[in-house]
Order: sequence, then structure tokens, then C-alpha cells
Amino acid sequence: MENQSVPVGFADVLAARRRLCGAVVRTPLVESDRLNARLAGRLLVKPEVLQRTGSFKFRGAYNAVMALAPKAVVAFSSGNHAQGVALAARLAGIPSTIVMPADAPAIKLARTRAFGAEIRLYDRRRERREEIGEDIARRTGAVLIRPYDEPLVIAGQGTAGLEIAEDCLARGLLPDAVLVPCGGGGLVAGIATAICATLPGTAVYAVEPEGFDDTRRSLLSGRREQAAPGATSLCDALLAPTPGELTFAINRRLLAGGLAVSDAMVEEAMRVAFDELHLVVEPGGAVALAAVLAGVFPAAGRTLVVVLSGGNVDSSLFARVLAGRPG
Amino acid sequence: MENQSVPVGFADVLAARRRLCGAVVRTPLVESDRLNARLAGRLLVKPEVLQRTGSFKFRGAYNAVMALAPKAVVAFSSGNHAQGVALAARLAGIPSTIVMPADAPAIKLARTRAFGAEIRLYDRRRERREEIGEDIARRTGAVLIRPYDEPLVIAGQGTAGLEIAEDCLARGLLPDAVLVPCGGGGLVAGIATAICATLPGTAVYAVEPEGFDDTRRSLLSGRREQAAPGATSLCDALLAPTPGELTFAINRRLLAGGLAVSDAMVEEAMRVAFDELHLVVEPGGAVALAAVLAGVFPAAGRTLVVVLSGGNVDSSLFARVLAGRPG
Repeated sequence: MENQSVPVGFADVLAARRRLCGAVVRTPLVESDRLNARLAGRLLVKPEVLQRTGSFKFRGAYNAVMALAPKAVVAFSSGNHAQGVALAARLAGIPSTIVMPADAPAIKLARTRAFGAEIRLYDRRRERREEIGEDIARRTGAVLIRPYDEPLVIAGQGTAGLEIAEDCLARGLLPDAVLVPCGGGGLVAGIATAICATLPGTAVYAVEPEGFDDTRRSLLSGRREQAAPGATSLCDALLAPTPGELTFAINRRLLAGGLAVSDAMVEEAMRVAFDELHLVVEPGGAVALAAVLAGVFPAAGRTLVVVLSGGNVDSSLFARVLAGRPG
Repeated sequence: MENQSVPVGFADVLAARRRLCGAVVRTPLVESDRLNARLAGRLLVKPEVLQRTGSFKFRGAYNAVMALAPKAVVAFSSGNHAQGVALAARLAGIPSTIVMPADAPAIKLARTRAFGAEIRLYDRRRERREEIGEDIARRTGAVLIRPYDEPLVIAGQGTAGLEIAEDCLARGLLPDAVLVPCGGGGLVAGIATAICATLPGTAVYAVEPEGFDDTRRSLLSGRREQAAPGATSLCDALLAPTPGELTFAINRRLLAGGLAVSDAMVEEAMRVAFDELHLVVEPGGAVALAAVLAGVFPAAGRTLVVVLSGGNVDSSLFARVLAGRPG
């Protein structure tokens, strides 16, 4: 049932799975008896915080690097995609250049550099990172690995969905829904591609921060909407201003809908992940869990899967959230 | 090569595995590229913080409850064993009574009660919990589940070792050593039973807090030594004053030795687990990781496995440790 207008199919996810086998952490599904009792349902959690580099981004980056076999790569990212590409390039034995904002947190610069990447800093106000990335690609012959609007990246992220399906079937469970954090939409597009092919009765939802719920609104209107002007959010990993072209082409066909959560709901989800799951989750990684805990998506009597997409959070912010002091 | 003087053999671990299948979380082995680079070795981490009730204790408790099929159970514990027994009893559909100190943290009392256990409080200074537990067992016919000196409990904990062996072999890795947190010695005895039967070239070590390194000293002297009088430690889960009789009979045959770590090393390990593994580890759960990070056990050029045995830590203590302020 592959359609020509869909840029990524299940066969691409299966090909990614073969490339990633042995290189990625096969993250488990975990759950908490106390959380299940509280929700009067069953909640299975996919902790991509345990993935290499601390987020799912390594899956897509590694798939793209291994499939394209370039001589060098370039990427623009202030966060998790940067580390994913840098590590994938190091494992492939090729140089990487990452375009990062000059005001990015020192720890993110240091960690990306530690994987052997060359950092090209830019000024957020005066320069456009896409142009810098494309210029480096043109001049040096490096291949640009886009963070989400790239079929190989989407297919790589989809391997997380394939693992969810396998682990549910191994337990004899058919989940009612899978909830996935959404920025540009690459992770949810990949997971939906895998889930729709393996668990066709399971609905897949994108979860976004309030104000950055452009995918939710785009799914309703049928065209790519923009994030609210001047919106702010604690979820630094999910601030993409509009759905990707390729990701939206997939998501409008496959997703059951979009959900939005507040910063306060995200902070509570981070605390619950600490107390009940013993996992460190960054704000953007906690939005799907937040939607379930806050009742934005009802859990009673249902079997749900939520993806915790990343765990790269500064310890001082984490301590403030634990103490219940707004970030 | 089973010996009559050894109270638990590999066959017991295999029987436990069959009982626990589908009831426990099969925790993965995870690792961090940055940590491996820092250590110039390969460090595989077994996160039992993801186990049901947040620690490995559920394995042994569930194995004992399922094997003995009692009408009721009783246990004494101020911590993780309490929750493990309470949940195992609930899953078996039988009542449980847990003997806990009156000054135990409110959250531990509440969590144990939430699993349906009846709590019998006692005064640490005036009463002996063993006597209370044995008295309840005599009067009510409930079966006493000891926290570590019980063959079925040791065999249940050993299933974690079997999983370590399987996951190492699946990756084509032969670890030089497996390092395991040690209080009464049940977890390390069980894991050593499994590892010695499956990876006979791999050394197994017990890791304890300084002052409570009674197993380390007992392994050296050949008889059961006591913890240092008046010793204190941040590791509330590892304060057993002397090795168990059964656990020591196993550990003196199978362990390569014991190691001791300071509170400062433990706090640093908790921070590293947060930063590099995105896992929440309680102080006692972090001692094996601490031994590797602090260089108490050298990692360079080696493949090591460490068990993170539990994650039940209060958020205010955790925040203090993250901030580098001694607990």
C-alpha cells in the first residue's frame, strides 16, 4: 500500500533497521505499577533517553550516514541532531561540520566537539543556518544531513516504532495509541510509518508544546501552519516553526491527530519520570508523557505507549523542576 | 559442578528465570560513548532502576512468592525489599505484612502500603524486626521472606546475571569483570552463580560503601566480619552489618574480591549517571559505577559490566547531589 506521494515507506524503515542493527541501543518498553494504577490503564514507556547521545536523533543520523556513505557531512542543529550526526560521522570515519548558534549552551558545543565534529558558529540574528549549511556543502562536497525533512532520517527514526510494535506483540498487547513528541515531525512520521504497517489498529498522535502546536493545527486545516508568533516554551528541542514538507506529507496521511501540552504539564511529567520510572527526561522529551498524565489524552481502560525522546537536560534546570520551581 | 555446601546452584537461577518470565522487566545493557572514551575502556551498565518497584529486589521476592505459593507473606525491610515483597504478594493475590521502622521515610511507608501491604511499625531501639517477623509468621501462618539469606531470593536476583551473560554474548563480548552493589550479598551471590556458569572467564566483585565493607573484609579473612562500629554512609540500601550466612557461603567460593567506595565517589557516580546515562540512581545503587569512575577498579583496556541496583531516591537529596552539595 505504498503511495508515490509518500516519501518514506515501511520498506525504508526495514532497510534502516538492517543498517542500525548492533549500532543503536535497542531501548526496552518499561512501565510502572504505580503509574498504571494511577491512570487506571496501562502505560508503556519507550525511553530513547537511553539511546546513544541521549536521544532518538542518533537513529536517523546514523541511517543517513551509512546509506549515503559520504566523504564528509554537514548539519545545522543547536541540540540533539548535532550530537547524532557527529557520532554517526565518527563511527563512519568521516569528518563532520556542525553549524551551531554562537549562543548555544557551552555544554552542547563541548559535547558535539567531543565527538570529533568541527563547529561553525553563527549569529542567530544576522545569519541563516540553512544557507551556511548549504554553502559548506557546496564548497566542500560534504553531504548535508537535514534534521527531519530527509527520507533517510525519517526512516531511521522509524526503527523506534518497529521496536515498539515488536515489544508489544511479544507481550501479547495491542496498544490503543502511540504518543510521540513532535518538533519538525521526523520522529512521529517514522514511527507512524512503522506502526501503521505492523499494528494497523493503533492510532499515532503527535504531541507538541502549546504555542508550537503547528503540526496539530496543520493536521486540522490540511496545510502547513506556523507556530504562534512570539511563543515561548521550556521545550527547547521542539521549537520548529512549521511542519517539514516531507514529514507533513506523511503525518497528514498517517496520524490520528495532534495534542498540545503546557510547560507546567511538562514539568510534572519530568518529576513523575524521576519518581516512578527513574529516568532523566529533557522538557521536549517529556511532552507525550505529559499529555497522558495531565489527561489531555485519556488513559483509563486503555493501553498506551509514550516515547520519551531525549534526556539531555542541564542539571540546574532539572533540580529546579524537581523542586517545583518553574524553569 | 554443583556442590552440596553451596545453597544455590545455576539450576535454581534457571528455574527462577522460568518463573519470572513475563513478570519482570528484562532490563537492557546500556552504555555511553563519552564514558567509554573517558575510561579508555568499555563500560556496560545494567539499569535495575528500571525494574518493577525501582530495584532488583522484585526479582527475588517474586521468585520466592511464586515458588512457595504461600497463603500470606511477611517481610522486614525499610526499603526496596518491602516494595518487592508487597508487589509480588499483590500479583499472587495474597496478603502481605511488612515490618518497617517507625521512623522510615513517609514516602517508603506510603509506597509499600500502596501495593496493598499491611504495615507493622516497630521501634528501632527497643524491638528486633527479625523477632517481630518470626512472631507474625508463627501466629498467622504467613511465610517469612528474608531479604537476602534465602535461596529462592538469591536465585531470583541471579536472573539479572543471566540476562547480563546473554546480552554480552549477543554482542560478541566477553566482559573482564562484573561489579555488583552489595549489602547482605544476595544480589552479588545470585549474579555470581549465573555468571560463573555462563561466562567462567569473567570475575565478579562485590562493591560496598566504606565502613560497611564487611563482605570485602570477610572475603579476605575467610570468616564473616562485622561493619565498622559507628560507621555511617549515604547508601541507605547497603547498611547490612555482616554478610548473610548463605550469601557468604556462595560469595566466598565465587567472588574474585570486594571493593569499597566513599560517599563522595558515590555522589559523583550519581551525577555521571544523570549526565551520561540519563538514569536516576539511589546512592546504594551507584556504588559499582562509583568504583569504576573513581579508578578503584581500573577500566582502561577492559570490558566491564556494572549493575545499577536501584533508583528510589528522594528528589531533595538527588537535587543536592546534582548541585555538588554533600548529602
